[in-house]
Amino acid sequence: MKPYKELSREELLACKEELDKQYKEAQGKGLNLNMSRGKPEKGQLDMGMGLMSVLGADCDMKSEDGTDCRNYGELDGIMEAKVLMAGIMGVRNPEDVILFGNGSLSTMYDAVCRSFVKGVLGSTPWCKLDHVKFLCPVPGYDRHFAITEHFGIEMINIPMTATGPDMDLVEQYVTQDPMVKGIWCVPKYSNPQGISYSDETVKRFAALEPAAEDFRIYWDNAYAVHHLYEDDQDEILDILEECEKAGHPDMVYIFGSTSKISMAGAGIAAMAASRKNMDSIKKSIAIRTICYDKINQLRHARYFNSMEAVREHMKKHADILRPKFEAVLDVLEQELGGLGIGSWVKPKGGYFITFEAMEGCAGNIVKKCKEAGVTLTNAGAPFPYGKDPHDSVIRIAPSFPSPDELAAATDLFVLCVKLASLEKLLEVSGGKNE
Amino acid sequence: MKPYKELSREELLACKEELDKQYKEAQGKGLNLNMSRGKPEKGQLDMGMGLMSVLGADCDMKSEDGTDCRNYGELDGIMEAKVLMAGIMGVRNPEDVILFGNGSLSTMYDAVCRSFVKGVLGSTPWCKLDHVKFLCPVPGYDRHFAITEHFGIEMINIPMTATGPDMDLVEQYVTQDPMVKGIWCVPKYSNPQGISYSDETVKRFAALEPAAEDFRIYWDNAYAVHHLYEDDQDEILDILEECEKAGHPDMVYIFGSTSKISMAGAGIAAMAASRKNMDSIKKSIAIRTICYDKINQLRHARYFNSMEAVREHMKKHADILRPKFEAVLDVLEQELGGLGIGSWVKPKGGYFITFEAMEGCAGNIVKKCKEAGVTLTNAGAPFPYGKDPHDSVIRIAPSFPSPDELAAATDLFVLCVKLASLEKLLEVSGGKNE
Repeated sequence: MKPYKELSREELLACKEELDKQYKEAQGKGLNLNMSRGKPEKGQLDMGMGLMSVLGADCDMKSEDGTDCRNYGELDGIMEAKVLMAGIMGVRNPEDVILFGNGSLSTMYDAVCRSFVKGVLGSTPWCKLDHVKFLCPVPGYDRHFAITEHFGIEMINIPMTATGPDMDLVEQYVTQDPMVKGIWCVPKYSNPQGISYSDETVKRFAALEPAAEDFRIYWDNAYAVHHLYEDDQDEILDILEECEKAGHPDMVYIFGSTSKISMAGAGIAAMAASRKNMDSIKKSIAIRTICYDKINQLRHARYFNSMEAVREHMKKHADILRPKFEAVLDVLEQELGGLGIGSWVKPKGGYFITFEAMEGCAGNIVKKCKEAGVTLTNAGAPFPYGKDPHDSVIRIAPSFPSPDELAAATDLFVLCVKLASLEKLLEVSGGKNE
Repeated sequence: MKPYKELSREELLACKEELDKQYKEAQGKGLNLNMSRGKPEKGQLDMGMGLMSVLGADCDMKSEDGTDCRNYGELDGIMEAKVLMAGIMGVRNPEDVILFGNGSLSTMYDAVCRSFVKGVLGSTPWCKLDHVKFLCPVPGYDRHFAITEHFGIEMINIPMTATGPDMDLVEQYVTQDPMVKGIWCVPKYSNPQGISYSDETVKRFAALEPAAEDFRIYWDNAYAVHHLYEDDQDEILDILEECEKAGHPDMVYIFGSTSKISMAGAGIAAMAASRKNMDSIKKSIAIRTICYDKINQLRHARYFNSMEAVREHMKKHADILRPKFEAVLDVLEQELGGLGIGSWVKPKGGYFITFEAMEGCAGNIVKKCKEAGVTLTNAGAPFPYGKDPHDSVIRIAPSFPSPDELAAATDLFVLCVKLASLEKLLEVSGGKNE
């Protein structure tokens, strides 16, 4: 088939007539599928069930240093679980890690909240400032943006490139605008595109000379060990080490968790940062809590007792996830390849595939899918304020449905992409859609 | 022995000489005891070890409504764990409960923080106000006061009476001062005195007509099922119900946890409030987290599968705690009874004994104990800003040491009480201490 843009108006109309018919048929099938949820499927969770028995009723419940994990204390967590999280997050020194609660989202929320309430290492609390801004590489993670919006922080879109955020723009904002206090980053297998930051990108981050002393890079290494392929994996530089080398040891907060490794919502979360940041953060969290759940820390540390064990475990996850990603990608390639109405990156890890439709089509595609029984993440969701300036990005989440369901859902998806694209082209070429 | 105040200066000096000798001997014993930590001992934690095996590797991990507790979702918690927490907190309707993380302190911190950042049901966020005040019944829980201090909230002391806070004063402040936004309460077996609020006190709380629309009662029912005696237990009225009856359903936030029931620091925490409060709170916590740890919720709900099971479990705790409280109380009674240099309430539950020394003696007693090897909670700790206006209150925490250790520590304590009191009396009677 020719690219759609090369079709005459008559060809477009003929094509649309045929696709309208197919869409009506699809609507009659009573599909009820969901590609919106970035959560593990049952099989992945089953693989972690060993966690449930690693601490039995006769367990001594003691960490390696003799701490009774059932009692109060150890605000920043037990060492063996710090070792685990340092390994997962790619941080050299476990001493640079603080353990938190059951997920990293609240860890990030609390980091922003602390800055809002009390400031950063002695700087003015953000609640006392008229204006605070964050840079938001787009498309990005909607829950990051929800946090900054919640605190009334203005969000500035930074386009993603194949090697990470547009660093020229990042440098310009960060070095020139003292109101810019942070940037959200998912540096490895980014949400939603699956892009990993190049070494140059990481080094440029580390070399930033911020106008604001309380500027921090919010480095959410959520998919650090979430590879899809055994023989083709991305690795990123250690941002903490790079920041130290560049003379900016305090400029980054690293976040991570085992949510998509062990149990979603019942994992352990962690943060890594410079000693100076950590000392200040510990003082603040000591007001909020006596300690986090050390029993869950011990459970994780004993079950995942080496990085080798983590890697073996994640290989099994990949065996479940890979066919799902491929089910979606195969249909995309087969049905849309060469049509010039959309593009996508084949991710090597993470939890999402990002489809970029023709400008002005994303909302329409999502709506059409919905009306035929396939739920996608709302168009716009991967952007601050839910507004995709080009209305073109759609996040596909293949992790939860089965490969067969994904194939069926993607069949409908590509049909809707074609239809929405045709409608747009017909509109542009001067006619009416109907 | 006569009351110290009836002794002549000569008798006081003679008495002091004898006690100085005893104190020197005590210092030579190399004691190393600690009565400062309000945490369970190993035996109590051992009793909860069944929790570790209730969800085995072959468990279905599903809540009663079929939710897979290992995955994301169920922001406000699973119903069977709400039922458990409603039972423990004395709240009629489990639907009025939201489950939180591993302890109630962070739940309370977050409640204050939400009000600071976003206000309460549409009112002005506290961060935008010049002045916010909290009433603090004293003596009270130091960590409550640390939260309000952290947020720059002015704290006003409200003296405790045998039936709860001085309600005349509470009514005066709450009804007249719109800057008063909250009051910290531990209504049952209060920290540190072990006082339970009378029905009249609870009803007067419920009947408050606050000057501030965003005034809330922070009702920390931390020791709801923590009785020491089988046949002599306090019960308090359901504040949520009383507030509803009085036409102020939104005026109270109730907090509770299983920290001192199951595992300290690895329990489940909960909050109960009106539907209107809850809906607003849920919107806010949805920004911070996807869900709390439902596996731990399920574990608790299955292990403590009825209030009868909770009561049986707490009876075993009481069997451990009771002899400890009595070890302390026996020595106090035997050594200080009739001397007129201190008073204490014999608590029927909770985790503390409060000793009230002669004015101006608490700091000196704690210091003397410390210098002879017995650590007590800092004098002043149970007061806002760590300042006891009369320097007379000392919190004793009998839960962690053994009864023998407690007896030895209390022996030293009473010696230090006598010495400090003598020094004070000699000072008052015009002489020098040394």
